[in-house]
Amino acid sequence: MFTFYVDDDIQLKLLEKRDAATLFKVVDHSRSYLREWLPWVDSSTTPEDYHPIIEMWLNQFAKNDGFQVAILYRQEIVGMIGYHGINWASKQTSIGYWLAKGYQGKGIITKATKALVEHAFQELELNRVEIRCGVDNTKSRAIPERLGFQQEGIVRDGEFLYDHFHDVVIYSALARDWK
Amino acid sequence: MFTFYVDDDIQLKLLEKRDAATLFKVVDHSRSYLREWLPWVDSSTTPEDYHPIIEMWLNQFAKNDGFQVAILYRQEIVGMIGYHGINWASKQTSIGYWLAKGYQGKGIITKATKALVEHAFQELELNRVEIRCGVDNTKSRAIPERLGFQQEGIVRDGEFLYDHFHDVVIYSALARDWK
Amino acid sequence: MFTFYVDDDIQLKLLEKRDAATLFKVVDHSRSYLREWLPWVDSSTTPEDYHPIIEMWLNQFAKNDGFQVAILYRQEIVGMIGYHGINWASKQTSIGYWLAKGYQGKGIITKATKALVEHAFQELELNRVEIRCGVDNTKSRAIPERLGFQQEGIVRDGEFLYDHFHDVVIYSALARDWK
Amino acid sequence: MFTFYVDDDIQLKLLEKRDAATLFKVVDHSRSYLREWLPWVDSSTTPEDYHPIIEMWLNQFAKNDGFQVAILYRQEIVGMIGYHGINWASKQTSIGYWLAKGYQGKGIITKATKALVEHAFQELELNRVEIRCGVDNTKSRAIPERLGFQQEGIVRDGEFLYDHFHDVVIYSALARDWK
Amino acid sequence: MFTFYVDDDIQLKLLEKRDAATLFKVVDHSRSYLREWLPWVDSSTTPEDYHPIIEMWLNQFAKNDGFQVAILYRQEIVGMIGYHGINWASKQTSIGYWLAKGYQGKGIITKATKALVEHAFQELELNRVEIRCGVDNTKSRAIPERLGFQQEGIVRDGEFLYDHFHDVVIYSALARDWK
Amino acid sequence: MFTFYVDDDIQLKLLEKRDAATLFKVVDHSRSYLREWLPWVDSSTTPEDYHPIIEMWLNQFAKNDGFQVAILYRQEIVGMIGYHGINWASKQTSIGYWLAKGYQGKGIITKATKALVEHAFQELELNRVEIRCGVDNTKSRAIPERLGFQQEGIVRDGEFLYDHFHDVVIYSALARDWK
Repeated sequence: MFTFYVDDDIQLKLLEKRDAATLFKVVDHSRSYLREWLPWVDSSTTPEDYHPIIEMWLNQFAKNDGFQVAILYRQEIVGMIGYHGINWASKQTSIGYWLAKGYQGKGIITKATKALVEHAFQELELNRVEIRCGVDNTKSRAIPERLGFQQEGIVRDGEFLYDHFHDVVIYSALARDWK
Repeated sequence: MFTFYVDDDIQLKLLEKRDAATLFKVVDHSRSYLREWLPWVDSSTTPEDYHPIIEMWLNQFAKNDGFQVAILYRQEIVGMIGYHGINWASKQTSIGYWLAKGYQGKGIITKATKALVEHAFQELELNRVEIRCGVDNTKSRAIPERLGFQQEGIVRDGEFLYDHFHDVVIYSALARDWK
Repeated sequence: MFTFYVDDDIQLKLLEKRDAATLFKVVDHSRSYLREWLPWVDSSTTPEDYHPIIEMWLNQFAKNDGFQVAILYRQEIVGMIGYHGINWASKQTSIGYWLAKGYQGKGIITKATKALVEHAFQELELNRVEIRCGVDNTKSRAIPERLGFQQEGIVRDGEFLYDHFHDVVIYSALARDWK
Repeated sequence: MFTFYVDDDIQLKLLEKRDAATLFKVVDHSRSYLREWLPWVDSSTTPEDYHPIIEMWLNQFAKNDGFQVAILYRQEIVGMIGYHGINWASKQTSIGYWLAKGYQGKGIITKATKALVEHAFQELELNRVEIRCGVDNTKSRAIPERLGFQQEGIVRDGEFLYDHFHDVVIYSALARDWK
Repeated sequence: MFTFYVDDDIQLKLLEKRDAATLFKVVDHSRSYLREWLPWVDSSTTPEDYHPIIEMWLNQFAKNDGFQVAILYRQEIVGMIGYHGINWASKQTSIGYWLAKGYQGKGIITKATKALVEHAFQELELNRVEIRCGVDNTKSRAIPERLGFQQEGIVRDGEFLYDHFHDVVIYSALARDWK
Repeated sequence: MFTFYVDDDIQLKLLEKRDAATLFKVVDHSRSYLREWLPWVDSSTTPEDYHPIIEMWLNQFAKNDGFQVAILYRQEIVGMIGYHGINWASKQTSIGYWLAKGYQGKGIITKATKALVEHAFQELELNRVEIRCGVDNTKSRAIPERLGFQQEGIVRDGEFLYDHFHDVVIYSALARDWK
């Protein structure tokens, strides 16, 4: 119902309790695809699992600490994007995203991410936006690279994925460099 | 940022902490006008008063219990509208609204209310929507009447306004009557 | 233990945890009778169901927001009555009640309700007391009518009862009319 | 409103927020008298101080952990009595009380205490009731002694009173000895 | 990890979540021995039972209300000791302890208790420390007696142990008597 | 009282409410020195400011989410060190520290940090420990470098210090590299 307009094809939607079934279906459908890079996929086993999570996401928004939203592509949920908390003291945040199988190559994540970066700098008046990607996750890395983010380093064993650690690249954009 | 599209001129926006100053300005500007029918106007004395209130409104939304949102008219905040809680057991809610001085006669509240009524019936699958207006508040009463709500009764001394009680009319629409 | 004296036969008792078994027995005994007009009967399946509910009722009382109490008739629990929250801003409340099968015709609810109405006006200094009854619930409607309440309107589909909505009449008494 | 009947002259009343002013007046009137044996008198400086305390007392009751109630003597508040928590695991509680200046010698505390002891054994099914009094507080000690409590020991420096410690006698009654 | 040094053999350790398995093993091993005088032994049935309890103990410490700690003897957990809450208003606390079977006769509890008594008087600036023991628990009573505590009385039926009450002796030490 | 032994000169101490005055004095004494690299110094204006902070630190410990502790050097508080939260899912944490003016050059922070790194790998079974330092904070950077941490990147504008952002270097150690 409440959406952030990116362009005519893409909007970002605050999820509500009644979206749990749809969200679950999207995740479930891309399960093995998403599992390669996302640590939470195995713990999503029923639509009801999303009831407390959706409430938690909305509470994050209510506390002015960022948000997690669905990406709508032509009115359908095809992924999620969000700010993982906001550090108001140091005026920074980081962005995470995932896209269901079959929607790659349409610029969906690039456009959604660009919208959130601009929102962070212009509306939230933050100074720094960070994106972290698995070193070997080329699709994910393409996003910050395409948007002109700068690579700052590699966090060794930055994340645990079911049975192994993987390295994570840090990218960032600063407000002063964003035209 | 997150808006509900009504038409090209009118959108409904979830208020965030950084909207407090703007919201206060709108209320403050129409203070004597709004005070005639709204009981909370005198307690709104500084922009900061809205910080906990905005968080409370977002918590209401997070709990799946309705919401209070700003009405944007051509990108400007000109009033508010919302569901005062949702009774899921009996599938009903009620709608309240106010409009700043100077924006009357453009159909803004009528269109916003119509959008929320339709959302209640179609998306939330509720059965009944109620609107309560001061008996002598002709501008407010025009809204449900224009939308085909049915008058059901008059609640004597239904609300206390600073120094007197006033009577309140109950209007309602039912899902089965809504085309 | 803590009771509100109505007359020598009738007292209102704050329920405590150890009353759960007795209360359950009373409800269980009148189950099909009560189910006709009360929406919560089916969810009362064991005495233990009342432990959190009794605590919730006492918390309502502790927050100065009304109370739900047992009606004692000659020292036995025969029903319940209470204020459904108190709107201190508009100085009003509403009263609800039920009586077990077999105790009708003794004026129990009429006297208990009258006591709560007087308490609301004289002790709580409220201005308005509301009672809502199913349109076809003639026994329930007889109470406010006998006490001189005024009918104000009919809330269409005001309550959902297991598998259907039913209409609800609003009655009220105002402090200034109460002699 | 909600009272525990002791006899025609004496009832025990659950205090509500609107009793704060009356309770304060009683304490304030006997201030120097009460201060001799009660550690909390100096912290009671305005009627509003009792708002959170009364809510705390009602929460204690709601949690099934005892209560603190006013003693009404001929419909007037003349003191307080209560159970200081209930140890359900070891089935015991302790009783505390105070009486305003000018009401001594009427058996008020003796009767109220006796009622609470009987309630503890018969209704709450506890096994042990304790009363602690200052060693030199002869008026207070007379209560358990008159009721047949047994003295069990002296807690040295058992309580701090503004500027000095004083010794405290422990008395108890057991359910099996209570006729 | 965080320990209170008593002597080279004995330290007191704040338990953390990862200690649950070890603590359980110690209790389980001495189950019938401990059960004679401790009321909680039967409710300790799995290591996981200790997760919420250890968090509760650390919360007690965080609230500045005493603590419950493991007794390490030559780096092994052999029992527990602690302050059961602190009454800051009357500057007093009480100490409880238990020791696994097989470690008696080494002065472990005596030394640990002495350390806590001194800590209470010197660091916490309390005035009174109480120890309560079962009347027939000679091993437990030997501790306060050896440390020069004074016996103050006998609490009849002071504690319920599975199927019977037993009497409890009160011992105390006062700061002014402690050399 | 509860300390983590590093060596005979250095221990790490869980701070309690009664340590607030001492901690404040240490910070206050090094105020201009600490202010160069620490963002919180200006908000520390009275000893009482530390009461809620110390409780918050102990709650962090109680939730098994790391801790903040005082560094004792020859029994005196000379700084603090701690884990800033623990990411149990990805088995990592980060360490922060500060040292009062006048205690540099004694290896105090190096030894304390080494102890926490070892504790993280051996006791907490974490996989990765991170340390972040201001790029120009040579004293701080010397610690991870001396301990063989590996530099992974530079977070541009990583922290806001009163009136400017500064860049932050990320160092890390992994469990498998730690001998």
